[in-house]
This record gives sequence, C-alpha cells and structure tokens, in this order.
Amino acid sequence: MTPTTREECAALDAADPLAALREEFVLPEGVIYLDGNSLGALPRSTPARVADMIEREWGQDLIRSWNDAGWWDKPRTLGAKVAPLVGADTDEVVVGDGASANLFKCLVTALRLSDRSVVLGEAGNFPTDLYVTEGAVGLAGAQQRRIDPDGPGLAQELAREDVAVLLLSHVDYRSGVLRDMAGITRLAHEHGTLVIWDLCHSVGAVPIELSGNDVDFAVGCTYKYLNAGPGAPAFLYAARRHHAAADQPLSGWHGHARPFDFTPDYEPAPGVSRFLSGSQPLVADAALEAGLDVWAKADLAHVRTKSLAMTDLFLARAASVGLASITPAEHERRGSQVALVQPEEGAGYPIVQALIERGVIGDFRAPDVMRFGFTPLYLRYVDVYDAATALVEVVESGEWRAERFNRRSQVT
Amino acid sequence: MTPTTREECAALDAADPLAALREEFVLPEGVIYLDGNSLGALPRSTPARVADMIEREWGQDLIRSWNDAGWWDKPRTLGAKVAPLVGADTDEVVVGDGASANLFKCLVTALRLSDRSVVLGEAGNFPTDLYVTEGAVGLAGAQQRRIDPDGPGLAQELAREDVAVLLLSHVDYRSGVLRDMAGITRLAHEHGTLVIWDLCHSVGAVPIELSGNDVDFAVGCTYKYLNAGPGAPAFLYAARRHHAAADQPLSGWHGHARPFDFTPDYEPAPGVSRFLSGSQPLVADAALEAGLDVWAKADLAHVRTKSLAMTDLFLARAASVGLASITPAEHERRGSQVALVQPEEGAGYPIVQALIERGVIGDFRAPDVMRFGFTPLYLRYVDVYDAATALVEVVESGEWRAERFNRRSQVT
Repeated sequence: MTPTTREECAALDAADPLAALREEFVLPEGVIYLDGNSLGALPRSTPARVADMIEREWGQDLIRSWNDAGWWDKPRTLGAKVAPLVGADTDEVVVGDGASANLFKCLVTALRLSDRSVVLGEAGNFPTDLYVTEGAVGLAGAQQRRIDPDGPGLAQELAREDVAVLLLSHVDYRSGVLRDMAGITRLAHEHGTLVIWDLCHSVGAVPIELSGNDVDFAVGCTYKYLNAGPGAPAFLYAARRHHAAADQPLSGWHGHARPFDFTPDYEPAPGVSRFLSGSQPLVADAALEAGLDVWAKADLAHVRTKSLAMTDLFLARAASVGLASITPAEHERRGSQVALVQPEEGAGYPIVQALIERGVIGDFRAPDVMRFGFTPLYLRYVDVYDAATALVEVVESGEWRAERFNRRSQVT
Repeated sequence: MTPTTREECAALDAADPLAALREEFVLPEGVIYLDGNSLGALPRSTPARVADMIEREWGQDLIRSWNDAGWWDKPRTLGAKVAPLVGADTDEVVVGDGASANLFKCLVTALRLSDRSVVLGEAGNFPTDLYVTEGAVGLAGAQQRRIDPDGPGLAQELAREDVAVLLLSHVDYRSGVLRDMAGITRLAHEHGTLVIWDLCHSVGAVPIELSGNDVDFAVGCTYKYLNAGPGAPAFLYAARRHHAAADQPLSGWHGHARPFDFTPDYEPAPGVSRFLSGSQPLVADAALEAGLDVWAKADLAHVRTKSLAMTDLFLARAASVGLASITPAEHERRGSQVALVQPEEGAGYPIVQALIERGVIGDFRAPDVMRFGFTPLYLRYVDVYDAATALVEVVESGEWRAERFNRRSQVT
C-alpha cells in the first residue's frame, strides 16, 4: 500500500518496526538525506567505538591488541557479521582491502578455475568494475565482452558457452535496477559459467541469498547502506566449494596458512582467509564494526517492505510533475534507489542542487540522472513525503533555473 | 659518542633537539616501548583529529566532504606529506591500499617496463614480499630468484643481465641491516635492472633519498615509525620518468584520468595517481594524517643521530652480558632496531616475555631473535638506559627461566 498523504506517512511511521533504529544515527539538522546509497549516515555509537579503539587498544595496549583486542582476526569476525546480510555462512566472507582489489582477486581466481577465457560484463556497470576487469583480463591473458544484462544479449552470450566468468552488479548504480540473482546465476551455471556478483548497491538495500543461490563469488563495499564510514574496507564472499582450489593473485602473509612461521614460500590458508593479503586499517575497521552492529538489530524483510513503500511513494509523486523514471515500476526489479530524468536536457544537475539548497540531499550522475537513495534504518515515511514535496515544488516553480544551481563542483 | 651512564643519558636528553616531540605522544604509564618498529605509538593529536573527521566531516557534512574536506584528493595530499620523509618530490608519492597491494602494482608495472622476466628478491625478506612476488610472477609469466643481498650473490646475479626487477627491503625486518640504497640502485641500473625498495622498516627510521638515488619504485607502510595507526594505508612512490609508461594492473576508477566522466574504458591518470585503485578508508586516513603532521616537526638528521646513539648504547650493554647481535656494528649498515640472540637455544622468547613483565616491550621473531626498535621521537636516552638495565638484569638473574615466560601466544 503506497501512502498518498502526509498523515498516512505519519501513521506508517508510528507502526514502523524499524522506527527505533533512527535513534541509532546522527543526522544533521534540517536535512533529509537521500544519498545513503552513496555514503551511509553516521551511527551514533561510532565515535565512541573508534575513540576506544584508538585510545585504549592502540594507545594503551599497543601491540598486545593484535591478540587481546582481536585485531588479527578482524577480517574474519567482521566477515561473520556481514555474512547474514548476504545470505552466506560465516566462514565464507572476509572483510579487507577495497572492492576494486577484491574484484581483481575474484576475477583472476575464477578465470583460473575455468578452462575458458572470457569475462562477460555489463556495458553500463559502475566504471571501476569495467576498469578492474580490463586490468585483470590484461594480466591473465583473457578477454572482456560486454552486454546489457537486462536485454536478450545475456542469454545469447552465455549460450555461446565460451564465458568463463559473468560479472554483474546486483543493483545498477545509476538506474537502481535489481537483477534476478537466482535466475541469472542458474542460467550461467547451466552454461558452465562462474558468477561474480558486485553487491555494492544491494547489500543492506535488499535481502540477498548468496549460498541459497549457489553464487560463486561476490564483493561489496560497506560505506553505503552498511554505514561503515567513507571508503571503509570492503568484503569478499567465496562459496565454500571453491576454497580449496582458489588461487588468488594478491597472495600476502595474512592469507598464509601459517603466517607466524615466516616461511619463504606461500601456502594458502585453508578457508576464505586465503583471500586476504596484508594488514588492514584497524581504525577504519572499528567504525565498520559499529555500523554492522546496528545492522544486527534490523530485520531485512522489514527493510525491504519499507524500502519499496518509500520508493513507490517517491516515484508516484515524481511522476505527477512529469519526471520520467529509469527505475523499474516492478518491485522485483527495483533496488532501494530511484533514478529520475527531467525531459528538458541538462535539468538534472540544477534540480539536484536546488533540492540541496532546500535540505534534500540526493545526487547527480552523468549524463542527466537524478539519483535518490532510500535507507529504511534512518529515514521516516514523512521524510520521504517531505522530500517528494520539495521535488514537486522545485520542478513546478522552475526555481532550479537560477544560475547559481548550474555551477559544477568536481565531485558530486 | 655513546653514553655509558644514566647521568650522561640524562644530559643528552636535556640537550636533545627532539625532546619536545615526546610530548606529542601518548605513552602508557610504566612502559618503555621498544616496539615502535612494529606499531608506532599514538600521537596525542590523533583522537581529536579522527573524532572531528567522523563527527563533522562524515556525520554533519556527509557526501559534501568529498569536495569540502578534500577526501577525493587525500591519497595525493597525504602522499605529499610522505614525500619529504623519503626524499621524493611531492608528485611522486600517493597513499592508499596496503603495502602488499602496492608492491604487487609496482612489480607488475616494472616487469612490463622491462623486456626481461626475472624478479630478483631476498631469501630472507619479510614473507609478504616473497608471497606477493610469487603471486605477481605467477600471473605475469615471470620468474622469481632469491639471494642474500648482503653477500656476493647480488652482484653475481645482476651481472647475468637477465634481471628485470630487483626487490629489496631497505632495512631487514629481523636483523635491522640497512642496505646501501645508492650503491645497489646504481649497480642494478648499470646492469639494466629496475629497482623496487621496500621501505616498511626504514621510513622514519633513517634518512632516505629516493629521487637523489634515481630509485624506480618504492612502497612502505605508515604504521611503524610514522605512527599512523595499526594497519594504516601504505604509500607508493614511482619516479616521475616512469609515470607516462606505467601500466599497473589494479586499474580502478580513482586512477582514471577523468573519473567523473564514467567512461567505460580505462584511461590512466597522467601522474602517480594512476597507481590508485578504489576508495580509501578515510577514517584511517585521518589518523595517518595526524601521524604525518608530527613528523613535519622533526628533522631526520637529528632522528638519525639520536637513533645511532641509542642503538650504540643498547648494543654495548647487551654485549656486556654475552648477548650476540645480528645487527651490524657499523653505523652505515644499521637501521633503527637491534636484534639480539642469546647463545642458549630457545632463550629469546622467554627473555622478551620477562622484559615485558618489567614494562620493557620488545618483540620476538622466529627462530630465536629478540628485536628492539628505537624511535627517537618519543624515546629518551634514559629510557634506553633503563631498558638496557632491565635486559642486563633479566639475563644475569636467570629470571626468564620461569615457566610462565614460555607460554606462547598466537601473535607476537
């Protein structure tokens, strides 16, 4: 049921099983933040958690904390906290490095597990996925082909039966399209293709079942819906069935079977730990852990229900002022973000800026997309209603045409 | 001049040009910390710096901080702060990822710049360097050979003129041996070999001249002598003459020439930025910046003078109770750490534990090495004197033979 009035939104907030979680976040005064799909908001517990890590674990206990504070095992203990959010077992996920480096590891590992040499990717994927694939295939002597995964090309390309690895984003960063993980993974496997899912825009946004869908590998970042802090360490999932044979190229000492023997030759650790490389930034890990501990209190089914109701509401009101949506109307094809286009060319950027001036923060993605993320842990239905009202007013009034809204900044 | 009495040490402290810097650090009560070569102490300014980054930059300003707080450029601004510590120009260093990943990038890049396919490394190098080399040569179709770089093998191997890349640690992690960067780099270049220096155990420990010695590439970590926090992001140096041709394999969007154009194909950034991959952990970067800002107040010539006097003092007193040193007596071959061996087999571990019980923190490295690091920014001469006294007493008394000192923990 899509709410249509502010009163209905307030009633939904009053009955919202996630309502109390909003109190777990710091949110700036006078702001409705619709960019949690880019950088999640700050959990209230993070500053104290990080301060304790710095002042006690580092400052007072110094190197003893490698044992006593669990620093050495942090990639695994954090991985175990990510696991339920992606439908994996706790020993199939590690946290460390960035999403780009983890994707590189998964691509090379998967290519080595296959006797084929084609990586099939998306023409419109987030650029780093394309660039990292370029780097990995260049070094591994493989090739990259690209398709639109939402069209007929995907099945056609897989049917050629020369694809070693299919790399897709679960939710498209720009349009918010959610892909059918179950069906696509099954189809790829039927054609002898391994699958890597990039979960950057879906983890914490939609329920995910990696193990249940027999997914081979996955990577994701933690600084968007998981609220771990800007650039926080990423995660890597590898299905248990691949652990023993996985031969990843960034073979550092944290991935060694017996790291404290200081042996000269590399012997990979038995489980998913073999995907680790070097030491991890533990100050950033402390912030990440605080974010994951908030997620431990959330039911992803509630998150999904609220997300769909919020995006339904926002899409309906945007349509009322003539904005086109490139985000699907069908729930099963929608992530937790909405991408809108104003028919007048070049209008996207200034409309986003005019909204920011009103305290509604979304973002802009080239060529002309207005992007709004919906984070059920800390957004209320009334916030979404008020943000939609601001959007309607900005478009109807034409205030976005003012010259000050068209000055571009470097990063948006 | 090596001090020999506590009074002489106190006099040296009174005249020490670095003395005031000790106040910039938090040091636990009752501890003499001789493990700053493993994990540097906490700068006093770090907690507030990190808290401000979290609460204001992230919590209040959210995504605006990518511009307003300089997040996007942090790998370059932090690189510019590392540059004077390694004798490089500010546009030759970036900070990001870990030392293992950065080493991988440099190895593959250097192999691609050469028409040879051998990486020459050290048999006794810190394991991750060996493991990462194994990973890089495996993927790049190259080979690894290993020598003792302090023996005649180095010149012999280089004279074969089939070595593409020489990878050495500037200071050996175990023995504290300092290598002749100028002479070795020159010799390698004479034989057509590119050089990568691992500076993990030398940056902040000894003066370094990368540009002045025409070094090709270097990597280093920041959490030892630079006091950036456990596992803090690493740095990468590439000589400017290599920038245009450098083709590094972890090609992510932060290394792209025009990252916000979201173009599908990779086009590397013109300078050292092409060595970047993905987003960096900015909470950890804030701690790193606090550490580097303390270093901006230190003169590396003073650091070196004090370091040598301290290690001279410690070595002399260790010798007085029959401990052998595997750290060179010659100043020009010594880093800022001391490695000792007790003639009785298996004595190293319990002696280190007995010292820790007395508040003197050093560490142990297999097979039987006691390792002590000297960090002139926050150690006083009297601390070194007192630590040496404790060592002398532990050895002379035989108290280390107590059973409680021989229970091994996982990480040392």
